[in-house]
Order: sequence, then C-alpha cells, then structure tokens
Amino acid sequence: MLAEILPIASAGVAFLTSLGLGLWLRRLSPGGPEVRRISEAVREGALAFLKKEVSIILPLAVIILALVALFISPYSALAFAVGGGLSILAGVISMLTCVSAAPRAAVATGRGLGATLLASFRGGAVAGMVITSMALFAVSALYILIRDAVLIAGAGFGASLVALFIRAGGGIYTKAADLGADLVGKLEAGIPEDDPRNPATIADNVGDNVGDAAGMGSDIYESYVVTLLASMLLGSIHGSPDLVLLPLLVGGTGLLATVLGVLSVTGRDPENPMAPLNRSFYVSAGLGIVLGSAASILVLGPGSLGIAAVISIILGTVLVPIIQRVTDYYTSYNYPPVKAITEATRVGHSANILEGISQGLKSTLPMALAIAATIIVTYFAGLSLTGDSLFGVYCTALATMAMLSLSGIVLSIDSFGPVSDNAGGIVEMSGMGEENRRLTDKLDAVGNTAKATTKGFAIASAALAAIAMIQAFQKEAEAVYGSLDYSLSNPLVVVGLLVGALLPFYVSSRLIAAVSSTASKIVEEVRRQFREIKGIMDGSAKPDYGRCVGIATSGAIRELIPPAAIVALTPVLVGVLLGPAAVAGVLTGGVLSGLYLAYHMANSGAAWDNAKKYLEVLGKKKTPEHAVAVSGDLVGDPYKDTAGPSLNTVIKVLNTVSIVFVSAFIGLIL
Amino acid sequence: MLAEILPIASAGVAFLTSLGLGLWLRRLSPGGPEVRRISEAVREGALAFLKKEVSIILPLAVIILALVALFISPYSALAFAVGGGLSILAGVISMLTCVSAAPRAAVATGRGLGATLLASFRGGAVAGMVITSMALFAVSALYILIRDAVLIAGAGFGASLVALFIRAGGGIYTKAADLGADLVGKLEAGIPEDDPRNPATIADNVGDNVGDAAGMGSDIYESYVVTLLASMLLGSIHGSPDLVLLPLLVGGTGLLATVLGVLSVTGRDPENPMAPLNRSFYVSAGLGIVLGSAASILVLGPGSLGIAAVISIILGTVLVPIIQRVTDYYTSYNYPPVKAITEATRVGHSANILEGISQGLKSTLPMALAIAATIIVTYFAGLSLTGDSLFGVYCTALATMAMLSLSGIVLSIDSFGPVSDNAGGIVEMSGMGEENRRLTDKLDAVGNTAKATTKGFAIASAALAAIAMIQAFQKEAEAVYGSLDYSLSNPLVVVGLLVGALLPFYVSSRLIAAVSSTASKIVEEVRRQFREIKGIMDGSAKPDYGRCVGIATSGAIRELIPPAAIVALTPVLVGVLLGPAAVAGVLTGGVLSGLYLAYHMANSGAAWDNAKKYLEVLGKKKTPEHAVAVSGDLVGDPYKDTAGPSLNTVIKVLNTVSIVFVSAFIGLIL
Repeated sequence: MLAEILPIASAGVAFLTSLGLGLWLRRLSPGGPEVRRISEAVREGALAFLKKEVSIILPLAVIILALVALFISPYSALAFAVGGGLSILAGVISMLTCVSAAPRAAVATGRGLGATLLASFRGGAVAGMVITSMALFAVSALYILIRDAVLIAGAGFGASLVALFIRAGGGIYTKAADLGADLVGKLEAGIPEDDPRNPATIADNVGDNVGDAAGMGSDIYESYVVTLLASMLLGSIHGSPDLVLLPLLVGGTGLLATVLGVLSVTGRDPENPMAPLNRSFYVSAGLGIVLGSAASILVLGPGSLGIAAVISIILGTVLVPIIQRVTDYYTSYNYPPVKAITEATRVGHSANILEGISQGLKSTLPMALAIAATIIVTYFAGLSLTGDSLFGVYCTALATMAMLSLSGIVLSIDSFGPVSDNAGGIVEMSGMGEENRRLTDKLDAVGNTAKATTKGFAIASAALAAIAMIQAFQKEAEAVYGSLDYSLSNPLVVVGLLVGALLPFYVSSRLIAAVSSTASKIVEEVRRQFREIKGIMDGSAKPDYGRCVGIATSGAIRELIPPAAIVALTPVLVGVLLGPAAVAGVLTGGVLSGLYLAYHMANSGAAWDNAKKYLEVLGKKKTPEHAVAVSGDLVGDPYKDTAGPSLNTVIKVLNTVSIVFVSAFIGLIL
Repeated sequence: MLAEILPIASAGVAFLTSLGLGLWLRRLSPGGPEVRRISEAVREGALAFLKKEVSIILPLAVIILALVALFISPYSALAFAVGGGLSILAGVISMLTCVSAAPRAAVATGRGLGATLLASFRGGAVAGMVITSMALFAVSALYILIRDAVLIAGAGFGASLVALFIRAGGGIYTKAADLGADLVGKLEAGIPEDDPRNPATIADNVGDNVGDAAGMGSDIYESYVVTLLASMLLGSIHGSPDLVLLPLLVGGTGLLATVLGVLSVTGRDPENPMAPLNRSFYVSAGLGIVLGSAASILVLGPGSLGIAAVISIILGTVLVPIIQRVTDYYTSYNYPPVKAITEATRVGHSANILEGISQGLKSTLPMALAIAATIIVTYFAGLSLTGDSLFGVYCTALATMAMLSLSGIVLSIDSFGPVSDNAGGIVEMSGMGEENRRLTDKLDAVGNTAKATTKGFAIASAALAAIAMIQAFQKEAEAVYGSLDYSLSNPLVVVGLLVGALLPFYVSSRLIAAVSSTASKIVEEVRRQFREIKGIMDGSAKPDYGRCVGIATSGAIRELIPPAAIVALTPVLVGVLLGPAAVAGVLTGGVLSGLYLAYHMANSGAAWDNAKKYLEVLGKKKTPEHAVAVSGDLVGDPYKDTAGPSLNTVIKVLNTVSIVFVSAFIGLIL
C-alpha cells in the first residue's frame, strides 16, 4: 500500500511544482494594453475552438458512455469518463498556459535572453508537468479504486478519442489558418508574417495554440495513459500484483526526476539557448534511470526479474535521445539532409519536393532500427533471464513506460516552442523593437528544433504504446474467447493487416484535403476583407479577425468527423464481422504503416521548413530559391502538423476502442 | 499426363501466334533512312543498357547459383538459372519488339488510325504473349522434369532478382533521362519534347523502352511465375497432385483465351481507340473464365472442390477490370480526382502537389477493399465448401493465378503504350507531318490510360502473389523446422513486420534520390553540349546522343545496387539471426506498406501527368497553371515510373529469396 501511494505522491509533488511555477509566471508583467488585447483575442479564439470541439465530442461521448456502462461495465464507463475528461483538461491547460505565457515572454524580451528563455520554458513546464501528473494520478486512483486493470482500460479509450479530435482538429485548424494567412498575406499582399493588417493573423496564432500546444499535450497524455494501462494489463495477465504496480512506480519516479530537471533551468543568459534545455532533459533522464531502477529492484527484488526490469528502463530511457538525435539530423539545417534540400531549391520546385520526400522517407530507417532493437533486447532480456516469454513482452512495455515517464520534461521543452513562437507574434503585432524580435526569433529557432524532435518522440512512443496495447488486446481477447489463431497463416489476420495498414494512408489523404479546402475558404475571406474593408493596408481600419477564426473552427471540425468515425468504427466492424484475430491484424497493420508514414511526413515537413529558414539565414530571402523553398514549406505544413501527428492518435484509438469492445467481436460471418 | 501437356501446348499455341504476328509486323515498312537511323540509335542504347545490367547480374547470379547448388539442391539451382535467364529474355523481347514496332507504327500513321493502332497493338501483343507463354512453358517443363514444387521455387527467385534489376534500373534510367531532357530542353531551351536537337532525346526514348516495356515485361513475368509456383506449392503441401496441376491448367486456358482476344483486334478505323482494346480484354476474360472453370471441374470434379475453384477463378478474373476501373478513375482526366488537381494548379505549386498526393493516397481505399474482399470470399468459399482451411488459402492463390492468367492480354494492351509513345517520338524526330503526330498523340493518350491501369494490375497482382507466397513460405518453414509461432503475439514476428514495412519506404527514398542525382548529371551534360557544340540549335550540328545514354546507364546501375542488395539480404539476415517466424513478419510487412505506397505513388504520378495533359487539351499550354502542372508532373515521374513499380519487384524478391534460403534460417541469437 505504501508503494501505491508513491505514484500519487509524485503526481502531487509535480502538480504543486507546476502550480508554483504558474504563480511565478502570473506575477510577471503581462504587457501593456496592446499586448493584452492581442493575447485576449488569441485566448478567445482558442477557447472558442475547444468549446466547439467539446460540443461535438460531448453527445458522442455520452452515447459511448451509456453503451459501455450497459454492455461492458459501469467501472469501464467511469474510467472512460475520467480518461476523456482529463484529456480535454490536458488540452485546455496546455493551451491556456501557452496563451498566458506568451505575452509574458514577449515582455521579458526587454530583460534579455535568459529572462525570455525562463519565462517561455516555465510556461511550457507548467503544461508538461500538469498533464503528466494528471495522467499518473488518474490511472493510480482508478487502480486503487477498481483494482482491475482491464476495467480501467476504458480510460485509455476516453483519452484517445478526445486526443484524436484535438490533435487532428487542431492540426487542420492550425495549418489551414497558417496557409490561408501566408497565401494571401505573404505571397499576394507582400506583408510580413504576423502582421496585424492580415485578417487571418489571429486565427494563425490561435492555430499555434490549438494545434501545437493542445494537440501535442493531449497526444502525449494519451500515449502516457495507454502505455501505463497496457503494461499494467500485461502485468495483471501475468497474475502478479507487483508487475501491475511497477509501471505506476516508474511513472512516479520519472515525474520526480522531471520536477528536478525543470527546476535546473535558471534565468542566466545562456551562450546557446538549447544548452539549458538539453541539460534539463539529461538531469531528468539520468535521475529517472536511477530512481526507476531502484523502484524495480525494490518491487521485483535484485534477482533476474529485477535485472531485466532495470535493463528495460535503461533502454527505454536511452531511446528518447536517440530518436531525438535522429529526428534532429534529418530536420535541422546543420546536417546534410536539409542542406541537400536547400541545394535542390536551386534546381526548381520539383527537385525541392522530391528531395524533401526522399529525405523524409530515408529517415524512417534509423528510427525503425532503434525501435526494433529496443523490442528485441528488452524481450530477450525478459525471456532469457526468466525463461518466461510473457515477461519478455512485459519488459518491452516497461521500456515504453520508462520512455513515456519522461513525457513531462519532453513536453516542457516542446511547449517552449509554441510559447516562444507566439511571443514572437505578439512582439511583431504590438510593434515592439527589432532587438526584441531578434531574441524571440532566436528562441523560435530553438523551439522549432524542439518541436521537430518532440514529434519524433511522440511518434515513436505512440507506436511502442500501440505495440504494448496490441499484446494486451490479444491476451484479453483470449481471456474472452479462449485460444485464438493470431498467426500470419490465418487469412483473416492478413485481411485485418491489409485493412489496418490502409487506414493511415486513407486518413492522411482526408486530413491533407481538409487543410486545403479549409485554407481556400480562409483565402477567399482574407481576399474579401482586403477588397471590401478599405484602409486595412494603411492601418486606418482593423480587419475582422473573428470571421477567419470562425471559418477555421467550423472547417476543421466538419472535415474531421468522417475520418474520425472511420478510425473508431473500423476495428468494431471488423471485430463484429470477422472476429478478434482480424482485429489484432487491423491494430498491427495500423501501427506498421502509421509509424513510417507519420515519421516520414513529420520529417519531410520539418526539413522543408528548415530549408526555407536556412536560406533566410544565408541572407537569400528575396531570391527565386527562397520562393521555391516557401512553396515546399507549404507542402510540408499539412504533412508535419496535420496528417503526420494525427496518425499517432489514429493508431492509439484503434487499440483502445478494440480493447473496450473486445467482448462484442463475435465474428458474425465466420 | 494428358492434362500436363495442355499448359505446354497452350504455351506453344501462344508462342506460335506471336511468332506469326511478329512476322506480320516485320513485313510492314520500317520507314525511310531517317526513321531507321533513329530507331537504330534507340535500339543500340537500349541493348547497351541491358547488356550492362546483365554484366552486373551475371557474376552475382553465378555466385548465388553455386551457393544454391551446393547448399540447397542442384535442381533449385537449375530452376534459378531458368527463371532468371527467361526473365532477362522477357525483358529483351519486350524491348526489342517495342523498338521494332515503333517505327512501323510511325510509318503506319500514313494509312490512318486503324492501321496505326493495329501495328502498335500487335507489337505489344508479341511481347505480351511471348512473355507469358515462356513463363508457363518454363514452369510446366520444370515441373514435369523435377516433380517437386519446392525445388522449382528457385525459378521464382531467379525471375524476381532479375526483374528487380530491370524494373528498378530501368525505372531510374527512364525518369532520369526524361527529367534531364525536359529540364533543359523544354524548360531552359524552350524546344518541344522529342526534338532531335536535344542531346538527351535518344536517352529519353531508350528509357521508354527499358523502363516501360522491359520493366513491365519482367515485372509481370515474375508475378506470373511466383503466383504459379506459390499455388503449386500450396497444392503440393495439401498433398494432392490435382491441386498442383490446376494452376498450370488455369495458366494454359488463360493463355488460349488471350490468343483469341489478341486476334479480335482488327485494323478497322475505330470511333474510340480504347474500344477495340477493351473488347479484346473482355473476350479474353470471358473465355478465360469459361475455359478455366471447365478445367477446374475436369480436374477436381463437379463437387465442392470444383465449385470453390470456379468461384475463385471468377473472382480473380473480375478483380482485373475492377482494379483497372479504380485506377482509371483516379488517374484519368475524365473524372473528379484529376479535375481537382487541375483546379489546384490555379492556386499554385504547393496546392497542386498536395492535391495530387491526397488523391493518390485516397485511391488506396477502393483497391484495398477489392483485394480484401477477394481474399475473404475465396478463402471462405474454399473453407466452407470443404471444411479445410488450407484449401481456403489455396483458393485465394488460385484466384490470383486466374488474375495473372490474363497477363498476356494485359501486357499486350500495356505494351501498346510505349510503342505508340515511341512512334510519336519517331514521327516528331523524323519530321513527318502534323496529321501523323495527331494520330500518334491520340494513341499515346490511350496508351497512357493503359499504362496507368496496367500499373494498378501489376501492383495488385504482385501483392496477391506475395500473399500466396508468404503462405507457402510459412508451410515450407514448418516442413523444415516443425511447428512455428507466426502469431502477432510473438515479438519476433512484430520486429519482422516492422523491418518488412520499413523496406518499401526506404527503397523508395533511395530510388527517388537516384533519379534526381542521375538526372542532374544528364542536365549538366545537356547544358555542356548546348554550350560547347555550336550549331545544335539551328540544326547545323548533331548533338552527341551517346554520352547521355552512357550517363543514364551507368548512373542507373550504380544507384540501384545498394537498395537491391538491402532487399535481397534483409530476409536472409533476419532469418539467420531471428529465425523463420521473424522472416514471415518481414515478408508480410513488406507487402503491407509496399502495396499502398506503390499504388499511391503510381496514381499520384499518373494523375499529375494527366492534369498537365488536361490543361493542354483545354488549350492552356502556355499559362502559369500549365507551368505548375509541368512541375507536378516532374515530381510524379519518379513516383509513377521508378519508385512505385519497383516496389512490386521488391515485395516479390523478399518472398522468393526467403523460400529458397529457408533452410538457413536457424535463428542464431535465439
């Protein structure tokens, strides 16, 4: 029982720390009336979007809740409500923190780089720690209350359904607004980014918050919950309460390590703004390994079980910087891939596009090898030390949990990105000086690196979370239906794999099309305002920002519903018609193509973006190459910020919906 | 024994028919000295390319031959040699026929549309029928000789290894030459396509032959051999000689049906040039179903076995026009998808690229559903009528064989594409009239549709062939190692799936990059010639075509070796280290992502191409939209003609190499 208190206590410590940082942040100056007017407009737009999303999700959630309560179990329904509710909260908190930290970081530009960095980072850290502590607290509390890992799996379903809506909806919103603002503002009217004369500029800033901040927050919250549940489920199938407890403990120790990592960042002016962020990560990772290993030995003893657990925790932790380095290599302009893309802009549009696609596709190799190696080593560590293959599978899940126990610090560093990006927008819109903009630009560049590498982390952890969940699903289905044929010789499994592997391709297609169609509506509206509201260009009249916000909101939500429904219903339909073995195929197929498609899209997109930035750094802003790079970046936008990251939530929804509805998978046509 | 003669006899009939058509073709006028000079240059270039490829493949093949003979079986080695040798021959024959038919079709433009169509079609038909009859003859003869489906599986390995080289090498060659010719010729020098002043124009024409004709020929030859072998293997595992024989018979009846279909095309001037081609296909398909069903009933009797076989043959045959219609819908400008892309060219480069990608991704849905439905229905037909799940798997393989038994007619229609394309080039280069060019342009449009739909056929059949082969592989491995755990609960299978699904992404990346790097070398050479050889532009000096041919050849082959080696060695490495279950994962993962990636790339590419053509039809050739569409087409070129089709051969090489080396998959680190 004492050990069960630890995760809740860690969650409490992290929550109180973020509360403290939040109060520290609130005491910073929120800027003059101009700054406050802008950030108020952004906050309103962002909340309007989330409210509209909730109004769509709520009736749907109530229906699912009723179905689950009636046909599965009231405990599952409770877990679903808690998981989903906290997922919304995770999104709202990420977003609100980001919105309120941005103007404070903008004002802090007056006090130098260190102060700006600290304000941005602590803004990110509040979101990062609140989200992970909430996830850990919820699952721990549900576990103490219900004592059945299967029944609380509903929390994963609730979390992932909401995350899909926020991630994909936010992704459509942010890129449609961005594209709409850029196409008319930058390319047609020739005014700079974030210029207050652009009617879509508030929508663009809202988009940064609902897409980058809320989306990433609920995505990682969901991976965290899913992984925690999957490893607890595997532990419970194994029949050992210790194995159910350990993932919670690893979550708790990781959270404590995160608190110390966050506090290691100070307001001193750094040489390189990346350095304090990196240090904070390594502090957390190192402490996470030490504390997590201690917890493993304490719970499982110093014998072979404990050693296998320690090996898994080390591997899972080490995987984080490996994935981040690989992602950085393929997306930062300090390395050959982005340089090759920059070079290709000289040849023309098609060469730029092909080079970006080729580099993004190529980046899947090292990532795949790292993930495959982690699975093999952890599985064999568990298997060979104990002779028990189920414990081997558990060890892989534990490694994934160790990876995700660092979500707090990873999210802190990531949320730093949208905060500094928005701060830059506020500096520009409120007409602060050149020097202030230079500072936020510097931090924005760091933020872009952090955003790209966090996407790598989110994709890899989503895939590993799904792999753990698929194992849990198979055991659960066998608990319901007896022994099942999950083998590749079973044509039903093959059909399931084909259907599952299709979904990421199809969903990507829908989401990319959604960005284009919503963006073109915004383009029309911006053109209309430039045409009809006289005086926008000379600053004598204000554009109607609200119209653009409204168009982006309703466009994003309308376009999102069909693919979301397809994702949630496919495993249920396959299960009801073809049975659980085919569903296991769907889940596995979804991870296989989703993982690589997401990583390719995220990296190709980030690489095009940075090729454009590299040309700007080289002072080639008004050249034909730069025009080519801008159009590459526009291709990359829905890749990296809409389709790519949404696939994370797609592969997790598939899993959680399947595990909740497993008892309905009767295979009608068999 | 009588039944065993039928496939050989059918192969003989088809071979003799194509010989007759070949003689008919040779009697047509090959044109004046100018035309002959051009086609001679193209032939030389194409042969030089194939010779160089053979000089690379040969030493490699001898090593593999020795290894197989020593460690596996001399019979397997013999089969490997036959399979590989005939694959080269398939490529050479396709290419030579295409090369010699093109000038004759060009000359036939003087006699009207019907005459041109007949010359082009019969040129294609010679290639199509020779290739399929060779494949059927070889496998039948090996079977009568060796009487062991396992030992003759080496023929599949030989065929697929050669096909990978020809398909991917030809794919790099054709697009690098095309891109190189277009980038400088069309965009910089402003001269039309196929203009003899362009130093890369012969290389471009050679490319059409080595890429489109030889590549498609060896690709389909390989699918044919692999499917035939896989269904025979499944039959032999079932222990019934009748089930081993039936696929050969289905191949034979399909070939006879093809002969009649080919002869149904006459030289009458058609209203719509597509009509006689479609008619010839439906004649073959209808006769194929009737004859194939008769053969099934004859061999398996009119009971449940026979009925299940008939159902499978019908489904496999019907799948062909379904896949063709789906492909046509997404790639022809008569339907909404290409119209949407054309519309997007008005917005700009990025909108055009995104719309093309989105449509190509979307096209995977109907194709996946058609394939999944075929697998489910054939499997259940076999299972429910006989209660035998292995027979269900066999039925799916038989459906695939029925599909591929139409390869002859499909290839005839497809080869019509490069023949008419080349004829157009010859008309242009030799300065025939406007009217002649209009005729070849009309046929070229039909050829483009045929090319796109055949790619759909090739991809779907490659995936189904691989699925059949994977089943055969699993049974074979169990014959060697005893019962194996192929289930999705086995982490080794999961790791195999991850590695297999990675390969298509990684190989695509290498192939796309290969086109760019080879094309940029050609661009430099063309620019150099324009600069250094005075008088090219006014026609007073001849460009040095040979240099461009040489650069394309050596570039293609150099860039091809690393990805080809990775594809061939990955399953062997995985098998030796992790054992056969992981290999089954690799094979399945390769099909899953390869199928969708290939289809997406083929269709996005063809759709961009046709959006450009649509603008030309609308009379918008010199508009900004057209410039955008041209650059989209340049992105699509390596998609549709290099990476996409090469993935077909990738997924088949994985399978055949695995089945030959299965006895080496000892799983060292287990």
